[in-house]
Amino acid sequence: MKPTPQYRSDCPINYALETFGDKWSLLIIRDLIFQGKKNYGEFLNAEEKISTNILANRLEKLELEGLISKSSDPDNHAKKVYRLSSKGIDLLPMLIEMMAWSAQYDQHTGCPVEFSNQLKADKQSLIAQLKQQLIKS
Amino acid sequence: MKPTPQYRSDCPINYALETFGDKWSLLIIRDLIFQGKKNYGEFLNAEEKISTNILANRLEKLELEGLISKSSDPDNHAKKVYRLSSKGIDLLPMLIEMMAWSAQYDQHTGCPVEFSNQLKADKQSLIAQLKQQLIKS
Repeated sequence: MKPTPQYRSDCPINYALETFGDKWSLLIIRDLIFQGKKNYGEFLNAEEKISTNILANRLEKLELEGLISKSSDPDNHAKKVYRLSSKGIDLLPMLIEMMAWSAQYDQHTGCPVEFSNQLKADKQSLIAQLKQQLIKS
Repeated sequence: MKPTPQYRSDCPINYALETFGDKWSLLIIRDLIFQGKKNYGEFLNAEEKISTNILANRLEKLELEGLISKSSDPDNHAKKVYRLSSKGIDLLPMLIEMMAWSAQYDQHTGCPVEFSNQLKADKQSLIAQLKQQLIKS
């Protein structure tokens, strides 16, 4: 039986922070959502240089929290592939707000101009469109 | 001159995470937004039991990142009061999405039912209303 995570309080913001709110977990979720990454090696290649032990730890934690699921790669059974659960996909609106905030305040943001414009013009359609793609993938 | 923070990449999600994305910074922002807390002693009383050294460190970091400002309490000059900047207030939509997500997935959420219902019924009005209150305070 998997252990049940314990939280510091029942505050909804604290729950979110303890579930995915560290400097690495959300980057893994970013890579699953926006980069189409699916396996360990791909996550390891992130620009922010995540270490192997932190990556393994965070993947395990995200799986325990029900944000991602792990299965065998149909082309290579020794290889694992990770997918977002609906609980993980539902982080999309929050991530989009996070990106919109950064695009507004970070002078050096790497948020593509086209994406940023679409964000400003119609955030809800963008979220719906991305969600549809994720459910299909 | 204050040092300029350095970031691991120019990804907008990474910027957000490095600016406020640790398990404590966002709880301080939560307390400023939703609890009307303003000073060190009030933040220290949070249910999640933040330690004095982490609290001092995170307040300094949030100030350096321009999310909060520090001034002397007009009633007691030795005492400091903290206020959100507009950059800090603009985290509101993201926090609201975070709460909505937790209210949906955390069985033990402390998100008040009334607030949760208002969230579902009209998120945009709720954000506008809270923002107005914060700007006035």
